Amino acid sequence: MRTDLLDKISGPQDVKHLTPQELVELCKEIRTAFVAFGKEHGGHIGSNLGLVEASVALHYVFDSPQDKIIFDVSHQAYAHKMLTGRADAFTKAEQFGTVTGFTNPAESEHDQFVLGHTGTAISLACGMAQARNLAHEHGQTTDVNNVVAIIGDGALSSAVAFEGLNNAGCQQGNLIIVLNDNEMSIAENHGGMYGTLAKMRESGGSYQPNLFEAFGLDYRYVEGGNDVNALVKAFQDVKNSEQPIVVHIHTTKGLGMDAQDAEHGVREGHCERNHWQDPLRDEGKPLGARKYYGQKVMDHIRARLVGEPNVVVISPATPGSNGIVPEFRKAAGSHYVDTGITEEHAVSYASGLAKAGCRPVVATSATFFQRTFDQLQQEVSLNGQPVTLLSFGGGMTGADNTHSGAFDIAMFGNIPGLTCLAPTSASMLLDMVDWSTSLENTKPVVIRVPGNAVLQADRGGLDETPVNVQAALHARIEGHGQPWSRYVTRQHGSQVALIGLGDAHVWAGEVVDALAELDEPIHASWINPLQFSSLDESTLRALIQNHSLVVTLEDGQLEGGWGEKITAFYQNELPGMPMHVLNFGLAKAFTDRVPVDEQRKDNHMTTQDIVNAICCYLSGETRA
Amino acid sequence: MRTDLLDKISGPQDVKHLTPQELVELCKEIRTAFVAFGKEHGGHIGSNLGLVEASVALHYVFDSPQDKIIFDVSHQAYAHKMLTGRADAFTKAEQFGTVTGFTNPAESEHDQFVLGHTGTAISLACGMAQARNLAHEHGQTTDVNNVVAIIGDGALSSAVAFEGLNNAGCQQGNLIIVLNDNEMSIAENHGGMYGTLAKMRESGGSYQPNLFEAFGLDYRYVEGGNDVNALVKAFQDVKNSEQPIVVHIHTTKGLGMDAQDAEHGVREGHCERNHWQDPLRDEGKPLGARKYYGQKVMDHIRARLVGEPNVVVISPATPGSNGIVPEFRKAAGSHYVDTGITEEHAVSYASGLAKAGCRPVVATSATFFQRTFDQLQQEVSLNGQPVTLLSFGGGMTGADNTHSGAFDIAMFGNIPGLTCLAPTSASMLLDMVDWSTSLENTKPVVIRVPGNAVLQADRGGLDETPVNVQAALHARIEGHGQPWSRYVTRQHGSQVALIGLGDAHVWAGEVVDALAELDEPIHASWINPLQFSSLDESTLRALIQNHSLVVTLEDGQLEGGWGEKITAFYQNELPGMPMHVLNFGLAKAFTDRVPVDEQRKDNHMTTQDIVNAICCYLSGETRA
Repeated sequence: MRTDLLDKISGPQDVKHLTPQELVELCKEIRTAFVAFGKEHGGHIGSNLGLVEASVALHYVFDSPQDKIIFDVSHQAYAHKMLTGRADAFTKAEQFGTVTGFTNPAESEHDQFVLGHTGTAISLACGMAQARNLAHEHGQTTDVNNVVAIIGDGALSSAVAFEGLNNAGCQQGNLIIVLNDNEMSIAENHGGMYGTLAKMRESGGSYQPNLFEAFGLDYRYVEGGNDVNALVKAFQDVKNSEQPIVVHIHTTKGLGMDAQDAEHGVREGHCERNHWQDPLRDEGKPLGARKYYGQKVMDHIRARLVGEPNVVVISPATPGSNGIVPEFRKAAGSHYVDTGITEEHAVSYASGLAKAGCRPVVATSATFFQRTFDQLQQEVSLNGQPVTLLSFGGGMTGADNTHSGAFDIAMFGNIPGLTCLAPTSASMLLDMVDWSTSLENTKPVVIRVPGNAVLQADRGGLDETPVNVQAALHARIEGHGQPWSRYVTRQHGSQVALIGLGDAHVWAGEVVDALAELDEPIHASWINPLQFSSLDESTLRALIQNHSLVVTLEDGQLEGGWGEKITAFYQNELPGMPMHVLNFGLAKAFTDRVPVDEQRKDNHMTTQDIVNAICCYLSGETRA
Repeated sequence: MRTDLLDKISGPQDVKHLTPQELVELCKEIRTAFVAFGKEHGGHIGSNLGLVEASVALHYVFDSPQDKIIFDVSHQAYAHKMLTGRADAFTKAEQFGTVTGFTNPAESEHDQFVLGHTGTAISLACGMAQARNLAHEHGQTTDVNNVVAIIGDGALSSAVAFEGLNNAGCQQGNLIIVLNDNEMSIAENHGGMYGTLAKMRESGGSYQPNLFEAFGLDYRYVEGGNDVNALVKAFQDVKNSEQPIVVHIHTTKGLGMDAQDAEHGVREGHCERNHWQDPLRDEGKPLGARKYYGQKVMDHIRARLVGEPNVVVISPATPGSNGIVPEFRKAAGSHYVDTGITEEHAVSYASGLAKAGCRPVVATSATFFQRTFDQLQQEVSLNGQPVTLLSFGGGMTGADNTHSGAFDIAMFGNIPGLTCLAPTSASMLLDMVDWSTSLENTKPVVIRVPGNAVLQADRGGLDETPVNVQAALHARIEGHGQPWSRYVTRQHGSQVALIGLGDAHVWAGEVVDALAELDEPIHASWINPLQFSSLDESTLRALIQNHSLVVTLEDGQLEGGWGEKITAFYQNELPGMPMHVLNFGLAKAFTDRVPVDEQRKDNHMTTQDIVNAICCYLSGETRA
């Protein structure tokens, strides 16, 4: 792999002296490096391959960091990273992983924000540009000159991007919005504006209605989005422009893949394969929890679509990573709706479907449900609509800091009227989906797709929580309105009770085993709460009889979470009773790609930590 | 006031038989009734006056409830309510207040949803229409025929509305989006698309770029938005249309006010006066907490704008209700930005401003900050940008169920890296704003504007928490990074410590007083926590010395809130210590216009309730 030119680029200043032909060569080197990197390491390769030329042209024309370049979502910033002193992380295998997959100001002064959710770049750019305007107004200097936002056509469908366009359309001063139009969102584009974008491309930018002019913005079209010198020309023309402008560039996602990639990649219509992150690396590996459980649910639902017009699966543009495979989507027909990257619409839309008698399932990541927190509360829960939210990647994972699932219990669990379920096996997951999408259920439900600890237990043949769900369902519906309102005790013991939620249910079992193996064995109870929207007060009260310590264990943030509610229950409802509660879970903090085992260590919640804490408490109690 | 025709309308069927002239007369009667109602009772009169004819025409043409009519935000549904059996609530003074200000399925089968936040009607309508499509596809009957969403030009700026338009633009089957364009948002319109809407109006709908056609939608313009027979014609033309269409109607907000109203209302450019809710009723009354404290903050900030280019106030279209008066806005110039109804953009935009060195203040309601939960977490907190969120109407209020502030502690308080302050006096509020918008502060801060309990104490001359903030600020910045990380003990006592947050700080003081007046007086400690983002562990540990009971009191939902964290602190950090904690706050539930006193009773948190609980606990402790 040749990296002659690349080796000479230590920062943007080294790009500026290249000849037009050298710019072309540099792009080739970068593209070749990405393909090799993608095969070995994985990553969002498709979008980065499309943006090679634009990144080079941006750094050739603009003067970062005085000119601010803001990448929306920022997973398409690999070339930008290579041009700003971080090429080794993509060209040298031993340095793969030394930079994040997103922009990060801690890595470089050329990165403005840590971004991993879509659509905010225009708003952020408006803000930086307005700060410059204010300084100028006061006759003060500022380190902000041009402000450039780069946003993809897929990300453009997300709500906040439109709010940003609308405000950019009435803002004064320099602001350059580069629309990276690769004709393709994560899976495919959905929405009426994509027809308009296509006609704008076909007409070379002259088509009316022009989406951006409708927002009051100036507009320029560049067909050669992978022609570095055409881009240089276009960017030079708009540099220092004195009012906001959209530069619409037409790029090709995945450009430069070889035949081997193409089999797996964008050209064969499989572009989403987890955003074409891992074209080859994961071949043959067993599926992770997200895709495994997602496929299970979709297979299960698929059988019902023939006779049940009311079952609808909605994906806000993330089908692939959640096991909603192309075969399912094809078979489901109108029962599957990809709304584009539009969590707010997806959840409101589901509420509308439910109001009209359907039982919709909205499937996306816990971290993306954050986008629609208000609609979860208002359109769904306040209105009591039987929408099922299938939440992926919640709890403790090794995710980067923009995709953490650790906040999901606090987000969902404190919304009135929302039943929050945490299944701990595939069969329980399917039972819960069956119930929540049945006409028997009339209220909103979130189901937290299990994580890898549960999956490992499932695969290892661990006995699942022995609950006859169908019987429980019918017995409990009569009494409680939802079948998972009671905890299930998997092992009856005494003295200490361990209650573990989600993946932490498995870990709680390991603590129970470890306690039984102590020199002075403790035969603890092991309880599966199944849900985190209400407490099973009856079970908690009964523990008083022969337990003095309850230990809660959850795979998410403690503050605002679930375990501390149990602590408060005993203190407030049974103030005279000698029950003590210890809570284990995550500290309130952002973590960035920290493996789960390490997070457990950092938060003093390994099996040994918990056994120690229990013994310590009990010995103190004995002494007292 | 004549109500001859209105008296004969018991439901939509009675509208359908009227002659064109009678339709005109009916509109006159409704308009007259609104003006009288508004003067006596208050309400969102301006938008309702503009929509009288459209409401009558909708019920003349469409067949509710088989045709579904969905009002966005739904505070413009008064005429709809009058036409669907609820006229007395607007014409008979003794029945004012018997219906809510929003649509409500519990009131009528003609109301589809409870809605109070903007922009979701298009998505909800897409969902109901798609449910109908699916039933048809399966050859099944459905009770959904036409689906009609009515959305104002102001609401159209909110993110989710664009997501909805984009999806409507590629959906099949009947779906009618009525754009109620009164040229006016709550205060005034902001954003590039409003220039386009103006040109579309001026051209009679022929102007290009056409905003709605850009989203792939059919389009029709009706200039006579207050001409009931013109509207009847337009709606008849689009009824049963087989693909989505936007009907853009040009209406006049506040049409029909008399001279007395006009002095106070929309024609004089004061249309926002709390959405022109209470044109006369509140004249001369003292300001409530929102406007009182909002004005205090703005007056305070105003003095700094001359010399500090970095201070910016951002309002997502709700200046009036938060004390951001026209005089301030005028004086602030570019330092005040109304972004339109765009909470997500407003918060991302603030992050951009902060990144470029500014200290922006985003001022809106707690309930509207829900819309931007994800940006609060990602763009602001994860990125550590020094944005100040000035949150109004948080905590316990008598608000309707769509505007409750009771969830704010759980929403803000569990986000990593976000400092959450709860001042308990005007001077403390200003100190906190001073600090958070100073260059000394480098992190995001939410400041919860106090509620009416604090305001009453402020006005009553109650000694405020005796903290020398300036001294504390400088002393503490060095040690802790933020000056309000330590609790302030207002009264040192023993045995029992009361810690009350926000308005509940005042209530905690009342409990302390009541305990001192018991036959066997208890001299309790009274502590002001000042904030809810972290615990002052040092103060909590010190209480162990001479207290056995800590009582927390908060003016919001207990679950996910603040007090239960203190309970968990003692159980986990000081497990061997005999400290008990009782928590008082709200149950996890939606409430609808329940007065604060009643909420305190319902949640067993009146002064007497708390005194009783304390005595009960202490007597049990004595017995044990």
